[in-house]
Amino acid sequence: MATVAVQSFVSAPLQVPKVTQFKIGICQLKVTTEKSANIFNARSMIQAAAEQGASLILLPEMWNCPYSTDLFAKFAEDFSDIDSAPSLLMLSEVASSLGVTIIGGSIPEKDAGQLYNSCPVFGPNGELKAKHRKIHLFDMGKPLPGEVQFKESDNISAGEKPTVVDTDFGRIGIGICHDIRFPELAMSYSARGAHLVCYPGAFNMSTGATLWELEQRTRAVDNQLYVASCSPSRDSAGSYMIWGHSTVVGPMGEIIATTGHEEAVLIAEIDYAVIQWTRESLPLESQKHNDIYQFVDLLRESPNS
Amino acid sequence: MATVAVQSFVSAPLQVPKVTQFKIGICQLKVTTEKSANIFNARSMIQAAAEQGASLILLPEMWNCPYSTDLFAKFAEDFSDIDSAPSLLMLSEVASSLGVTIIGGSIPEKDAGQLYNSCPVFGPNGELKAKHRKIHLFDMGKPLPGEVQFKESDNISAGEKPTVVDTDFGRIGIGICHDIRFPELAMSYSARGAHLVCYPGAFNMSTGATLWELEQRTRAVDNQLYVASCSPSRDSAGSYMIWGHSTVVGPMGEIIATTGHEEAVLIAEIDYAVIQWTRESLPLESQKHNDIYQFVDLLRESPNS
Repeated sequence: MATVAVQSFVSAPLQVPKVTQFKIGICQLKVTTEKSANIFNARSMIQAAAEQGASLILLPEMWNCPYSTDLFAKFAEDFSDIDSAPSLLMLSEVASSLGVTIIGGSIPEKDAGQLYNSCPVFGPNGELKAKHRKIHLFDMGKPLPGEVQFKESDNISAGEKPTVVDTDFGRIGIGICHDIRFPELAMSYSARGAHLVCYPGAFNMSTGATLWELEQRTRAVDNQLYVASCSPSRDSAGSYMIWGHSTVVGPMGEIIATTGHEEAVLIAEIDYAVIQWTRESLPLESQKHNDIYQFVDLLRESPNS
Repeated sequence: MATVAVQSFVSAPLQVPKVTQFKIGICQLKVTTEKSANIFNARSMIQAAAEQGASLILLPEMWNCPYSTDLFAKFAEDFSDIDSAPSLLMLSEVASSLGVTIIGGSIPEKDAGQLYNSCPVFGPNGELKAKHRKIHLFDMGKPLPGEVQFKESDNISAGEKPTVVDTDFGRIGIGICHDIRFPELAMSYSARGAHLVCYPGAFNMSTGATLWELEQRTRAVDNQLYVASCSPSRDSAGSYMIWGHSTVVGPMGEIIATTGHEEAVLIAEIDYAVIQWTRESLPLESQKHNDIYQFVDLLRESPNS
């Protein structure tokens, strides 16, 4: 037990972004063992989403590479050298040509001899605005009967910070798959003034059925903000069977849009006024008892960061 | 923004209680405007639960008094004078005569001119082991269209501390109704080594349908422990219509037992070995990133309290 000095922050006020009502497009795509085919397919689905009116587009976890440990290094790209990174280059080009913002799911990232499970964010001018490295890696302990052992940290290094990015479509927090299991991450995004938390993810069949929707609805309800998730389709290649069921949830826990397990472009309307109504109707934030407990975000730099 | 010094705690290890496998009985009872009838009915349902093998018994929020602000003072009892408190006296007597432990839902408590919404806990020797005063009062802000204004703090004072109580049936944390909306309270119970969190509650028809089950499953899953809830039945007297649907949830979010909206005694099997398996299978606690965020329990006295 150590005594640490921490700064007690209040939540950042919700800013009004450039656009408060818009369509989000969720690309639940099929991942194959061919990287170039995955890039081509992702581009087509982003275009399809944009044609249906989406101006913010979300891709799944590991969309350019099957979730197979032996493939990560081969499919990985260097985020500091986009011109040599075909997946990132495509995202930059398509964001710019369509004028959309892309929360780019995740791909394997290589950096200084390490591999990360990383989400790139591109703005409508094609600029890489941010990246989120998966913080909470999916490391199983002792498998239950019928479960298959899985230890992501054998091959992937963990991210070391939360990621919020200011876009034309609001302040967006990012978590990748197992990151959703930790209420603390969504709490930190809410306290940092996020309107929306995006979770690219690839839950398996057992945790998918029991937890995928539950955790999304919970993070939305407990923090009174929007949550969007994007999974690969079930027929994707990889080391395990994927649940699918990409979903968009509103700040009262309502499912705005969801889909099954097949390849699909899901379009949902988002209206940030609903966040305001929800919080005015039930001001959970002001009802927290900071005399009893406090949530401390050690990496938040200032009350408005 | 203030800088506060806090103690960084690790979670208390899970102790092995006297009994690790047992039946819990949930008394979803009908509350009437007659206090003596409510006491008689509660006693009958506790007895029915015990006859079905329950050794830990949970009652609903405000079981001796309709949820009507004008009745709280009239129905309130003084927890420091049990001999003059007919509801508490019945619980003490029936706990002792049946040899059961009772998490006594809640009743209005009067103390020094204030009213509280308080849960008494009685051990099998009839002793009042603990009480929990509802911490998070249900104060609506600006009602949404169709919603009725509701401000619990107009009539009730808030509790000032979390409550964990060691019983023969494990370490039990208690939250009352709106307390469930705050992940922090369940997190503090988990960190204090609770096996089970009991939520007496009386959600209304709208939040009941959308949030009651969701929040219970979430608190169980995120903290890998058992959650049990107990509501009055829908045909109870009071100022609003009650959702019902008392439920018991296991540490993987699985619904072990639930019921509809009518008066019912719900019996569920609890086995604390499942907590251990769940945590061994997926050690969420050790995967938390305390270098990024920390949950601070300001009132926890020591790492093992």
